Amino acid sequence: MTLPGRAGVDLHLDVAGTGIRAGLASALREAIATGRLSPGTRLPASRALALDLGIARSSVTECYAELIAEGWLIARQGSGTRVAARPDAPASTPAPIHPEPRSIPAATLVPGAANFAEFPRSAWLSAARRALAVAPHSAFGYGDPQGRPELRRALADYLGRVRGVRADPERIVITAGFADGLGLMARALHTRGAHTVAAEAYGLGLYRRVLADAGLAPTSLAVDDAGARIEDLAGPNPPAAVLLTPAHQFPSGVVLSPERRSAAIAWARGADAVILEDDYDGEFRYDRRPVGALQGLDPERVVYFGTASKSLAPALRIAWMVVPERLMPAVLSARGPMETVSALEQLTLAEFITSGACDRHVRMRRQSYRRRRDQLVDALTRSGADVRVSGVAAGLQAVLELPAGTERRVLHVARERGVMVSGLSEFRQVSAGDDTRAREGLVVNFSAVSDAVWESALAELCRIIP
Amino acid sequence: MTLPGRAGVDLHLDVAGTGIRAGLASALREAIATGRLSPGTRLPASRALALDLGIARSSVTECYAELIAEGWLIARQGSGTRVAARPDAPASTPAPIHPEPRSIPAATLVPGAANFAEFPRSAWLSAARRALAVAPHSAFGYGDPQGRPELRRALADYLGRVRGVRADPERIVITAGFADGLGLMARALHTRGAHTVAAEAYGLGLYRRVLADAGLAPTSLAVDDAGARIEDLAGPNPPAAVLLTPAHQFPSGVVLSPERRSAAIAWARGADAVILEDDYDGEFRYDRRPVGALQGLDPERVVYFGTASKSLAPALRIAWMVVPERLMPAVLSARGPMETVSALEQLTLAEFITSGACDRHVRMRRQSYRRRRDQLVDALTRSGADVRVSGVAAGLQAVLELPAGTERRVLHVARERGVMVSGLSEFRQVSAGDDTRAREGLVVNFSAVSDAVWESALAELCRIIP
Repeated sequence: MTLPGRAGVDLHLDVAGTGIRAGLASALREAIATGRLSPGTRLPASRALALDLGIARSSVTECYAELIAEGWLIARQGSGTRVAARPDAPASTPAPIHPEPRSIPAATLVPGAANFAEFPRSAWLSAARRALAVAPHSAFGYGDPQGRPELRRALADYLGRVRGVRADPERIVITAGFADGLGLMARALHTRGAHTVAAEAYGLGLYRRVLADAGLAPTSLAVDDAGARIEDLAGPNPPAAVLLTPAHQFPSGVVLSPERRSAAIAWARGADAVILEDDYDGEFRYDRRPVGALQGLDPERVVYFGTASKSLAPALRIAWMVVPERLMPAVLSARGPMETVSALEQLTLAEFITSGACDRHVRMRRQSYRRRRDQLVDALTRSGADVRVSGVAAGLQAVLELPAGTERRVLHVARERGVMVSGLSEFRQVSAGDDTRAREGLVVNFSAVSDAVWESALAELCRIIP
Repeated sequence: MTLPGRAGVDLHLDVAGTGIRAGLASALREAIATGRLSPGTRLPASRALALDLGIARSSVTECYAELIAEGWLIARQGSGTRVAARPDAPASTPAPIHPEPRSIPAATLVPGAANFAEFPRSAWLSAARRALAVAPHSAFGYGDPQGRPELRRALADYLGRVRGVRADPERIVITAGFADGLGLMARALHTRGAHTVAAEAYGLGLYRRVLADAGLAPTSLAVDDAGARIEDLAGPNPPAAVLLTPAHQFPSGVVLSPERRSAAIAWARGADAVILEDDYDGEFRYDRRPVGALQGLDPERVVYFGTASKSLAPALRIAWMVVPERLMPAVLSARGPMETVSALEQLTLAEFITSGACDRHVRMRRQSYRRRRDQLVDALTRSGADVRVSGVAAGLQAVLELPAGTERRVLHVARERGVMVSGLSEFRQVSAGDDTRAREGLVVNFSAVSDAVWESALAELCRIIP
């Protein structure tokens, strides 16, 4: 993400949709360490930076506070937050400033970003108009905390058709995003006596915090070329659940192998455990044999989670889960008596789905993302770059695998050239007892930028990769 | 609320927006005890009843389970839930069935109900169209968990103008309803070391559960003709906070006296405590000297809570709080990194407010509610009923005070005649050590029904009151 040069500097910060504070802090540390931000430079006000990045002001102030505590920044009443003088940088040595203005606009290719110019504003407004026209008066009152029946019916049909989910509207719970649903399920499992939940060793730290907040200890499950290592779940003290991204492991992009899919179901049955299936980008598959949701194999052992964040927009704060029958009472009890998601938006989404507008929108975006994916693979092949591209069968991002010890350097060069990508190792969730070495690579989100920016970014990427 | 006669009986159930399960259970017990539901009568399926009442199915199933455990109902596989035979009702004595069909349609005058026919559908859709047309692309991404800046700016202006709230947009937090905000604040207070929160002795049980879920013990504060008895807060171990409805005590309708307003602020300062001001219907005042929000007296000691549920519709799930500066970090930390409320709905509400549509809508509804209030007072006066009407200076309901020992009987007759009102004593929150006698009365929500239904209900009320 590129910030306007509020203080005479362009701040190019790699901030993913979540884990924002850590990402912001590390980007700032790097910019100061490399001299891109020189001593005395005034940083944007926390409020302005938060607005520009579309993140919480508290994330920015906490990040600033952290860097002040570490000595990178100093804050003075009335003069804002500035880059501190570095005692280890002799005044006679000018800090290495970026030698020339970049030739391309900064390209945000970090996971979590999306091309919000693609939000179907007029189709959405039409759906809202139709939904409002037919909504019963009672829809404006207090509603069912499980969600509007219209939306649950629409989703049951849609998920069955598109993802092979076996969904009864009575088992669907509408939530304010995936994290909200995961939190509900975690509290439900906790009240039923669960203590630990295994989660893939690569993923977003936020979800581990959601589990921990509900009183569940997250443990790490290694990921290899066939997806999460289900066999590692075997043992005398199995976790109560495992959180998986079977269709497209996040962020490595690996698809869980057929053997491991069966093994996961067998494990859950044997251990009396549940699988939490995070199907965050299941609509976007590019190969000829789409892999259905794991939930279809055993709806009583798998909790299916889907979201409108990837297919439409995170701003809607609408997601859903399909819950095994025996867990429904605990989930509804964790939800409490109040609905969380606006009934009007739920009715609009129901209309958007049943009218076919959602299918049209997803189809258009899938075509455009597939083209981007192809361009990425073709360009890297033509450039002769010594890199393996993985995770390209589906989703909004791919991984360019890098030799050990090179990720940091490549990331640095990419950012210098205005290509904002994330490192695979940044998503590693280290747990006690896990001494495997981090995998390295670039996580390239090819969905979020315009065609012009994408072409330049692609050319830069080909030059950068060793 | 009147249910269609699914099993050959009309079920008239008094269910407020919250405390639903208890209300449903007590209404069913009464219907069975009085013979309105005779032995063997099949009850609606829990799903159908939940849909009809617009409540969670779990509320219905839990209520049924409770009544089965108590012996009022029996459940048999395949034949649903039925009214149990009563051993104390000799078979030779037919249960007293309602003698004749009611002459008026059932009137729902319970608190929490609203006339959802009044939702301004077309003005809301226009606001949505304008908001979508100008929203920046970034508005469709992950947003500020504190809420959209556009809405916070609009609310800061609106609340200052309409309620005398001193609100900086930076101190406003958008929440998914009042209970969501109260929960956030309760968790924030708990992390800052709070243990107990005083709440008015009359109110909704739900809010005490929200406090308790956050680890805070609720205690009871008596309410008299001048509002909550602030002087009772004095003592060696003051609570960390007190939850008040100063503008219009819920449900008694009393306005907190000027002396007690000052005393509340003085107490909070002296005890280093905060006042949680629930201004749920502050827009609807009918007298000539509107009482501003308590928050205006000391924004650092009062947390102001407002909601779109009463002025627009509960279905929006949008509310707000204005937070003292020192509590902001704890509140934002309790919120976490994710936004909860749809950004599109926030932008729509911001546009609805700034365009003046909100003022027009509230003004129209205030006039109509004031007329209803006047009609209620006039009709009772003309009928010569021996009843004191209180709580009529503001809000959507009034209290008809009843002599001790008569509420139960009057409620019963009213319901028999199709007038669904609540008893004041139902809202009493009994705490340990509180041995005051319950006040009795009818809580009459005059805002929720059509003119025709209101006229008949009013005539019935005048006949019923002793």
